[in-house]
Amino acid sequence: MNKKIPVGILGATGTVGQRFIQLLDQHPWFEVAWLAASDRSAGKTYAAAVKWRLNTPLPESVAKLEVFPAAPNASTPKVIFAAMDAVAAKEIEPQFAAAGHAVVSNSSAFRMEQDVPLVIPEVNADHLPLLKTQKWYQKNGGFMVTNPNCSAMGLVLALAPLHRRFGVEKIFVVTMQAVSGAGYPGVPSLDILGNVIPYIPSEEPKMEAETRKLLGSFHGAGVSDAEIAVSAHCNRVPVEDGHTESVSIKLSKPAQAEEIIAAWNEFRCLPQKLKLPTAPEQPVIYETAPDRPQPRLDVNRGGGMAAVVGRLRPCNVFDWRFTVVSHNVIRGAAGAAVLNGELLHAQGYIR
Amino acid sequence: MNKKIPVGILGATGTVGQRFIQLLDQHPWFEVAWLAASDRSAGKTYAAAVKWRLNTPLPESVAKLEVFPAAPNASTPKVIFAAMDAVAAKEIEPQFAAAGHAVVSNSSAFRMEQDVPLVIPEVNADHLPLLKTQKWYQKNGGFMVTNPNCSAMGLVLALAPLHRRFGVEKIFVVTMQAVSGAGYPGVPSLDILGNVIPYIPSEEPKMEAETRKLLGSFHGAGVSDAEIAVSAHCNRVPVEDGHTESVSIKLSKPAQAEEIIAAWNEFRCLPQKLKLPTAPEQPVIYETAPDRPQPRLDVNRGGGMAAVVGRLRPCNVFDWRFTVVSHNVIRGAAGAAVLNGELLHAQGYIR
Amino acid sequence: MNKKIPVGILGATGTVGQRFIQLLDQHPWFEVAWLAASDRSAGKTYAAAVKWRLNTPLPESVAKLEVFPAAPNASTPKVIFAAMDAVAAKEIEPQFAAAGHAVVSNSSAFRMEQDVPLVIPEVNADHLPLLKTQKWYQKNGGFMVTNPNCSAMGLVLALAPLHRRFGVEKIFVVTMQAVSGAGYPGVPSLDILGNVIPYIPSEEPKMEAETRKLLGSFHGAGVSDAEIAVSAHCNRVPVEDGHTESVSIKLSKPAQAEEIIAAWNEFRCLPQKLKLPTAPEQPVIYETAPDRPQPRLDVNRGGGMAAVVGRLRPCNVFDWRFTVVSHNVIRGAAGAAVLNGELLHAQGYIR
Amino acid sequence: MNKKIPVGILGATGTVGQRFIQLLDQHPWFEVAWLAASDRSAGKTYAAAVKWRLNTPLPESVAKLEVFPAAPNASTPKVIFAAMDAVAAKEIEPQFAAAGHAVVSNSSAFRMEQDVPLVIPEVNADHLPLLKTQKWYQKNGGFMVTNPNCSAMGLVLALAPLHRRFGVEKIFVVTMQAVSGAGYPGVPSLDILGNVIPYIPSEEPKMEAETRKLLGSFHGAGVSDAEIAVSAHCNRVPVEDGHTESVSIKLSKPAQAEEIIAAWNEFRCLPQKLKLPTAPEQPVIYETAPDRPQPRLDVNRGGGMAAVVGRLRPCNVFDWRFTVVSHNVIRGAAGAAVLNGELLHAQGYIR
Repeated sequence: MNKKIPVGILGATGTVGQRFIQLLDQHPWFEVAWLAASDRSAGKTYAAAVKWRLNTPLPESVAKLEVFPAAPNASTPKVIFAAMDAVAAKEIEPQFAAAGHAVVSNSSAFRMEQDVPLVIPEVNADHLPLLKTQKWYQKNGGFMVTNPNCSAMGLVLALAPLHRRFGVEKIFVVTMQAVSGAGYPGVPSLDILGNVIPYIPSEEPKMEAETRKLLGSFHGAGVSDAEIAVSAHCNRVPVEDGHTESVSIKLSKPAQAEEIIAAWNEFRCLPQKLKLPTAPEQPVIYETAPDRPQPRLDVNRGGGMAAVVGRLRPCNVFDWRFTVVSHNVIRGAAGAAVLNGELLHAQGYIR
Repeated sequence: MNKKIPVGILGATGTVGQRFIQLLDQHPWFEVAWLAASDRSAGKTYAAAVKWRLNTPLPESVAKLEVFPAAPNASTPKVIFAAMDAVAAKEIEPQFAAAGHAVVSNSSAFRMEQDVPLVIPEVNADHLPLLKTQKWYQKNGGFMVTNPNCSAMGLVLALAPLHRRFGVEKIFVVTMQAVSGAGYPGVPSLDILGNVIPYIPSEEPKMEAETRKLLGSFHGAGVSDAEIAVSAHCNRVPVEDGHTESVSIKLSKPAQAEEIIAAWNEFRCLPQKLKLPTAPEQPVIYETAPDRPQPRLDVNRGGGMAAVVGRLRPCNVFDWRFTVVSHNVIRGAAGAAVLNGELLHAQGYIR
Repeated sequence: MNKKIPVGILGATGTVGQRFIQLLDQHPWFEVAWLAASDRSAGKTYAAAVKWRLNTPLPESVAKLEVFPAAPNASTPKVIFAAMDAVAAKEIEPQFAAAGHAVVSNSSAFRMEQDVPLVIPEVNADHLPLLKTQKWYQKNGGFMVTNPNCSAMGLVLALAPLHRRFGVEKIFVVTMQAVSGAGYPGVPSLDILGNVIPYIPSEEPKMEAETRKLLGSFHGAGVSDAEIAVSAHCNRVPVEDGHTESVSIKLSKPAQAEEIIAAWNEFRCLPQKLKLPTAPEQPVIYETAPDRPQPRLDVNRGGGMAAVVGRLRPCNVFDWRFTVVSHNVIRGAAGAAVLNGELLHAQGYIR
Repeated sequence: MNKKIPVGILGATGTVGQRFIQLLDQHPWFEVAWLAASDRSAGKTYAAAVKWRLNTPLPESVAKLEVFPAAPNASTPKVIFAAMDAVAAKEIEPQFAAAGHAVVSNSSAFRMEQDVPLVIPEVNADHLPLLKTQKWYQKNGGFMVTNPNCSAMGLVLALAPLHRRFGVEKIFVVTMQAVSGAGYPGVPSLDILGNVIPYIPSEEPKMEAETRKLLGSFHGAGVSDAEIAVSAHCNRVPVEDGHTESVSIKLSKPAQAEEIIAAWNEFRCLPQKLKLPTAPEQPVIYETAPDRPQPRLDVNRGGGMAAVVGRLRPCNVFDWRFTVVSHNVIRGAAGAAVLNGELLHAQGYIR
């Protein structure tokens, strides 16, 4: 058996950083070999630096790793999974790409840049070659690939099979987002216990723009956004993990309910074909019970990598309405990046 | 000072029934004089029959009243506030109307009947004369008046001022509804703790149809629904009191943000003119903070009788989007019926 | 490979019944072959009868089984796991024992009967032969074995190693119990959202009496209760799974903190020796972080079968105080019964 | 009518500071005239500096006040209500006392100082003269008076009437504390949603020591602690307002249940005699329903100033056990200080 590919994690102590470590534990291809976090953590072992908040044990091999400051050093591996907030990412991620690293980022900082692929492997794996247009890639092989915002992820997974078969023209979506989406410490309990907060800073424009880019088409030099009107309303609710979204859509071609459900349940893509380790067998699952999907019950389907859809019914204003739930930290963040990393490996971009 | 009007409460022990008793305590016009509930409670004092769940004390004058079975008897007063579930209401409310009572009902059972006024005093007080077409009214003066579903209430209060000034043509609305809307015992805690349930039986069609009737026009013999396309998605969230709704609307005439906000803040109607005791001074309040309204913070504005609106911003699909919060048990149920009762009294239908 | 032992489940559709099915899926020794529930469910397939509420899929082999009424019939297997409420159990369980079945019960109905073993395999496996004194056993081999209440389970697991080494004389314990302990629909959300209910009917006397019986000694004809004074205060809190308990104890012999922690961490018993499939490797785990154990983070340790202890510190009134968390539906109910079933099999009582 | 006494608030923007402003709005004796907070807020109007989180409107007269840095200036009134965290209070409060101000503090920083009165007006108003031993008082009339920790408040209110009549010797208490006790932003929602945290830093020793000082006796030069052994276990639960405490006590003299309940219900003290504006009519209320008190239902009794007791029953280890609930931010913090201020005024210490 071959040696595993060493990978580093930027922002290793945060909510998404911890999920990277959880998801990469026992990974068949990758091995966590290098960690970086804020200066407050640097110099400590990971066990000492992190407030581990997952309900599986902190892997022992990672617990004893030293946490470095967030800058490339002699021991930094080629492949970096990045889980920093946008402000830090804006400054730090380019340093890694410039130093020749493959930065697989969960941050929003560069998602909408013209030469940065924003990729969901099931949806637009064909956008990946865009990375070759990056100046770093041309200079020393470094590059940056991103995955979408956690709120865009569930929506786009549910829309992609429909967009392919019937064309999606207009979208109205209201999110009810879990608190883990805000990181740690994140949302104060006094703000959210028994409450709804109808506002998440910058979330709506991100969700709208990313949806259009993800469903857009790659033409060598760049990506043309899909011509879809998207109106997003983003709310925070007292749920730990799992974003729920109420969606209405207008299609280009008429579609029957059975056709839509079939499009979802039959949706299989490159990650499934390539048998990428983190790819769910069925990326979109339609649940027939009238009160599903629910975050508490459906968030871990497909190892947290499936989007679960339900309540398909006609819409009085557009064509159809439905509900989608997906795990915001796994499918919508760490798992998304890991799957991007696997795709990059399968396609020869990282070794 | 005049003697108060004695009123009865049907379904007195439930969530809405308790609110009737709370809201009618010290009421300047009405006095709770008669209580009825299910056979399980009949014969007990109210204090013994009820599991009082409000955080104000059970009024002593009501505590000692006897609870009767749900049928008119010799001591039943003319005016009845009814808080029964739809199945019970279907059978029992007509018995009271037939016996000459004024039934001011919160139930959905008869709201969409052609000869039953569905009224929000600020919105369509002019629909009230429809009650004169009821066979009971013509026979012995009995009648039935209803208020809308708790989810329609906040929406319609927010839309009414806009509909008057600019015309509303299309509506997308997603609700995040409090558990008190399901009564008691209602939603099991195992279903809703840290969860969202994307389904409330029958809620969406009710919300859609009632909105069209409430904003419709009365023409002597009946009500013509407003020509508005409404698409409602109804969700349950772990909030005790207060429904939050994300709304997008298409208007007939162009409107600036300031005009819309002015339409809300300036909205004053018959209940305010008549100074009905339960009418809020300002029925629709626009909050400028970017993260408002929130149920925990805004649900009790105007004594729980105001709808609080916020986050007005352009919509990428329709014209405008915003959020509205209202108290589902006060403005959306018991308080709505009390205000209807006050309007009926002010207009001479009950004395 | 040998054929698996067919087992039946009484009360198969409830919260604990569903856990039985989850835990017995892929069980190396047992196979769910027969289901019974209330008359409302009888005659349906399990998939049609149950409102499955676990976040793992309903096993397909069980989904299609028919649900029988709760009475022994021709196809009832020898071994029955019972998850009925006490009132139903009181009437129905003896019918199964009388018909020659091995009833492994989670109900409280017979736990304190003189001839019924109340067993935690790690604590008092030696009480098991008490079942031979049951009249059914002597007649046709039927018998009944019980596991304790979910609130007693965590406490007794934490106390057993200390009682053996140092003797426990007095116990103060305050529980903060999860809503799943009340079954489904169980606790109304209106009662528990953002609240504490300082009362669980019958829970305190059960917890006190069962603790004394479990730590008592078997002497052929019966069990002598341990001479321990127990004062329990039982509260319900808005947690889905996992009972948290604050405990103070007075010991017979002085003990150092390190000795107590060692007693916990070193505690290995018959189920570990016998490698019973459901036995956790380490039944009691001491966590050193100052804010542990917590139900959300620790409830699934050891597959939900470990008790997690923390915050050992001197007590100003007794000798020591600490906190213990355990999974009330796995370790405290279905898993407890399955482990009892495994012990019964390992010791030749069921085949 | 006399002019009101101007008062200042230190730490005006925090959770307790906001409650001061809410409770002092329309106060018959005091008027908020001066505000101070951290440097981040200084120079802004209060409306601009605060994230107002209460569900009553921010009083207009306070909204426009300027927020000063936390140091005495020319406009600082004589009387200061202080709501700073302990670290800030340690440094800043003495500056105000030294400058001749009456500092009525909610902080823990000086509560246990020998010359600082720690006072609950219903319990130990006679400790107040201790302030005369403070060096500031002797120099320029400045002084400092404190109220207890929010967890000690409910316990001591419940114990005081029993201690007077029967003597309390030993106490075992487990708290389930609301998140508002940790201030804002305070407890991250990811830590407490659906969870219990069995640890609040420094809370247990504070609760134990303060209980002994509050129930101790004043002898001119100082306070002798009451000889009571207290063992406290402090837990955080997902409740917004209201600490719930499970208590077992050993008494010096035997007492019947009725005598204890009478001691609670009849407890009237100096604040009631003096009719202090914030004093509840009945400081301790015994609730007879088996499942009371509950924070959601009972926290606002007596305007949030009453302690509500219930579930009195014999204890298997000590004499009696019961539950007490009190509002941690009103009775346990801001309201406690306001009541201390009123007592100081009534007794001539402030004018």
